[in-house]
Amino acid sequence: MPPKKSFPQLSKIQEVELIDDLSQWALGNGLVMYPKDFKPYNAAYAPVTLFPTPFPRSQFEKGIEVAEKFGELYAKVTSNYEWLSKAIEELSQFDKGFTGKLWEVYLKAREFGIVQTKSLGLFRSDYMLDTANGEERIKQVEFNTVSISFGGLSSKVGELHSFLNSKGDYSSDKGNYYRDEDLPVSDSIKGLSEGLAQGVRYYESSESVKDTVVLFVVQHNERNVFDQRLLEYELLKSGIKSKRLTLSEVESSTAIDEATRALKLKSTGQTISVVYYRSAYAPYEFTSEKDWHARYYLEITRAVKCPSLLTQLSGAKKIQQVLTSKAVLGQFLDKESIDTLHDTFVAIHPMDDSEEGLAAQKLAFAEPERFVLKPQREGGGNNIYKQNIPEFLEGLPKSEWPGYILMELIHPPTLKNKILRDGVIIEEGILCELGIFNTVLFDESDGQILYNKAAGYLLRSKTSSSDEGGVAAGFGCVDSVYLY
Amino acid sequence: MPPKKSFPQLSKIQEVELIDDLSQWALGNGLVMYPKDFKPYNAAYAPVTLFPTPFPRSQFEKGIEVAEKFGELYAKVTSNYEWLSKAIEELSQFDKGFTGKLWEVYLKAREFGIVQTKSLGLFRSDYMLDTANGEERIKQVEFNTVSISFGGLSSKVGELHSFLNSKGDYSSDKGNYYRDEDLPVSDSIKGLSEGLAQGVRYYESSESVKDTVVLFVVQHNERNVFDQRLLEYELLKSGIKSKRLTLSEVESSTAIDEATRALKLKSTGQTISVVYYRSAYAPYEFTSEKDWHARYYLEITRAVKCPSLLTQLSGAKKIQQVLTSKAVLGQFLDKESIDTLHDTFVAIHPMDDSEEGLAAQKLAFAEPERFVLKPQREGGGNNIYKQNIPEFLEGLPKSEWPGYILMELIHPPTLKNKILRDGVIIEEGILCELGIFNTVLFDESDGQILYNKAAGYLLRSKTSSSDEGGVAAGFGCVDSVYLY
Ligand SMILES: Nc1ncnc2c1ncn2[C@@H]1O[C@H](COP(=O)(O)OP(=O)(O)OP(=O)(O)O)[C@@H](O)[C@H]1O
Ligand SMILES: Nc1ncnc2c1ncn2[C@@H]1O[C@H](COP(=O)(O)OP(=O)(O)OP(=O)(O)O)[C@@H](O)[C@H]1O
Ligand SMILES: [Mg+2]
Ligand SMILES: [Mg+2]
Ligand SMILES: [Mg+2]
Ligand SMILES: [Mg+2]
Repeated sequence: MPPKKSFPQLSKIQEVELIDDLSQWALGNGLVMYPKDFKPYNAAYAPVTLFPTPFPRSQFEKGIEVAEKFGELYAKVTSNYEWLSKAIEELSQFDKGFTGKLWEVYLKAREFGIVQTKSLGLFRSDYMLDTANGEERIKQVEFNTVSISFGGLSSKVGELHSFLNSKGDYSSDKGNYYRDEDLPVSDSIKGLSEGLAQGVRYYESSESVKDTVVLFVVQHNERNVFDQRLLEYELLKSGIKSKRLTLSEVESSTAIDEATRALKLKSTGQTISVVYYRSAYAPYEFTSEKDWHARYYLEITRAVKCPSLLTQLSGAKKIQQVLTSKAVLGQFLDKESIDTLHDTFVAIHPMDDSEEGLAAQKLAFAEPERFVLKPQREGGGNNIYKQNIPEFLEGLPKSEWPGYILMELIHPPTLKNKILRDGVIIEEGILCELGIFNTVLFDESDGQILYNKAAGYLLRSKTSSSDEGGVAAGFGCVDSVYLY
Repeated sequence: MPPKKSFPQLSKIQEVELIDDLSQWALGNGLVMYPKDFKPYNAAYAPVTLFPTPFPRSQFEKGIEVAEKFGELYAKVTSNYEWLSKAIEELSQFDKGFTGKLWEVYLKAREFGIVQTKSLGLFRSDYMLDTANGEERIKQVEFNTVSISFGGLSSKVGELHSFLNSKGDYSSDKGNYYRDEDLPVSDSIKGLSEGLAQGVRYYESSESVKDTVVLFVVQHNERNVFDQRLLEYELLKSGIKSKRLTLSEVESSTAIDEATRALKLKSTGQTISVVYYRSAYAPYEFTSEKDWHARYYLEITRAVKCPSLLTQLSGAKKIQQVLTSKAVLGQFLDKESIDTLHDTFVAIHPMDDSEEGLAAQKLAFAEPERFVLKPQREGGGNNIYKQNIPEFLEGLPKSEWPGYILMELIHPPTLKNKILRDGVIIEEGILCELGIFNTVLFDESDGQILYNKAAGYLLRSKTSSSDEGGVAAGFGCVDSVYLY
């Protein structure tokens, strides 16, 4: 192994040329988003780092190694109705606003009858490199089971950094600064699309139909639409068509066949084999009972859901916390897998009135700077960090505390990469989060796994001063790894 | 052959979906330009047609069939110094402002000594479908030998229309409206890059050097930069790097080796094997004597020029006019080629005091609506059309008339395609111009041809009410063919 390289050292002139090449490559190759208040005919490049960010090869490989084990774990959690329903039922008391609503919708669907037991997971397990013990080891931030994003742009940013490297922009003599094999490009576009295609193929063969489509359930005015489109284009290469509808358009644009519960597009009669949510992960998205009804409506169809309500619920932060117990893990996995996965966990504590919960409640006030407090929410911007925890808890009725989890902070290294955003360079140092994608097709009735495959990676970086790293929200950017 | 299809008939709802798919595909796949007053981090999709435009297959194939013959013709014209110098010398009298300046620069370079006799042509022969005699036959509008554009975006718009077709957006049942084989995607990105690569490889083998680069001589603040970048990306795939400089940056950023006249980048020492102009075709681009000197400076280097001054000058509209004579063509081509090429010509008349010229001067006043009057200019917006001709000529000293040519108008059919531009649909009907790209590497000292190959096509469409069809200028858009 050659020694670890520091970031390229460029003169001002070289940096100007790099930014020129980068900007136009990004705009010319789909590494784009819609800007705020956008017009449909104008796009901006996504915020990106100038350079790929160093990441220890062993830890990158570890993330990939555990991806399918996590896929298996969450498939099994989802399929263990007895266990999951108990956990979610309880959690619903403390998070009536969202977990409770989702659970209510699920119970209603279950009562009516759920005809599709096959379930598709497009998952992303997120890690930070923890430096706490002098070593660098990946530690899980969270496990996402619904509407995971950036699988499209991640492939693109890897291509971008590889392009800049081959172009010679990272070295003053225009040679390659990095070796190609140290700059892996994420194959998440292919991997995630293949996951969706598995759902389509399963449906078509089991129902003996052809030319079915994937329904992308999307948000109105989505700014990150190009990330989603990349999956649509890849699907179409395999002959699979897709249709985009918002939650509120679903019921007027589709119909359910009474006999088979097949879901069809009214306009064309096409059968929808897979319902793929790129929305419906946050309460603010449900603006009326109609939207909640649409979620119910889709759940009772024969289409394979990605994710089903149970799969989405298995991604609750509370479940993540419960799964940090080896005893609990032992209900789902073999001994070796338990150790391997557990290795990636930091401590996460409940905030309920169990013994551990009571201890955690004290810790939250005594040593808040060690923790992040998380509600059952997705999409960023919901957590409470460090010194803000005590005041926040004081403002919250104690009866609601169990809806939160208290997680130890991971301490990633601050790195001297630079972020480019709307033509402005931010140089204050970055923190990185590595996401590993995984796709699983499984049967919720018996936990049988039909397909389980790691599906590329995402590196998101954020300025070191911000607690959160949302790319669209403006805190972070997409990045790629340089492995050392 | 299946019968010719009319344009897809879509409902309003279908058209909205088509435009959504189109807009995001274009923005996500590099079918983009910088908008007016742009910021480097924002791009807009290029103006495009919603549908591919019907074009008779036989005439499309005819254009491709004659491409290499035209390549040969212009290589031979350029290499016949005696003939060309006489024509250009004379023309320089009447167009002192540009032809005269270019010729002056050439003579100065010749006097100093031109060391590179190999010359690279990236050409585009433009046609319209003439309906004058009840038949549809391609007739040449002009032959471009310098800074031909849209080879990049042309491949992209073909891919776009093919995508929309496969997505089912052209048919109400989401099937394929067109057969794939009737929607040829232009291979101009590959073809033009391969032309440039031929220049690089020739240089590297004859000079025994490696890792040379292609210099793109570009305009400051180019809005059509993505079209150019596509060629750079394709070159890089073959390991060939490129560098972009404006004419005014050339001399400070490069140096000429005294002994060999090799042109090198100062910053890195890289040798420039090919100088590729995407600029320097219009007088307004030369803002100072420094710019004119840069054109001279590049001409005396060992780099292969694309185009050389002689090659650029061979593309004068005056030369096009002279070449409409079979007798003149006979000096360069065999009998069969003469007939084939001549078939694509409409009448073009000189405006000098030859017998034909005097007759043309009368015609220009008597039947102006049959003609377009063209000066020796490139880049659009310079011609005088129909009824405007008499008044224009009256305002011009008669001594300058011979700097113009009088060309018969071609009468293309008006077609019911729709143009999309910045979110607005223009439905007034379109006129099309088909460009066929060609690349030639040849020796100007003896006319020997080392490489000659057709390189894809461009279909540009404009609203039927406009005389000119500049895409960047806002008159036209990029399009692709549906062959019938
Ligand atoms: N244990 C931790 N240690 C350090 N930082 C953390 C930790 N947990 C969360 N963060 C930071 O907070 C951000 C948001 O947390 P988290 O990913 O759990 O929330 P989320 O709302 O589910 O986000 P997403 O939008 O990714 O679904 C993370 O991306 C990370 O930057
Ligand atoms: N003989 C003709 N009949 C009909 N239209 C013509 C004719 N000649 C030119 N035109 C129209 O005028 C436009 C400009 O003419 P031409 O291409 O000769 O000029 P140019 O300045 O060299 O353009 P370019 O930007 O393509 O180099 C053409 O694209 C075409 O639309
Ligand atoms: Mg997260
Ligand atoms: Mg999350
Ligand atoms: Mg033209
Ligand atoms: Mg021209």
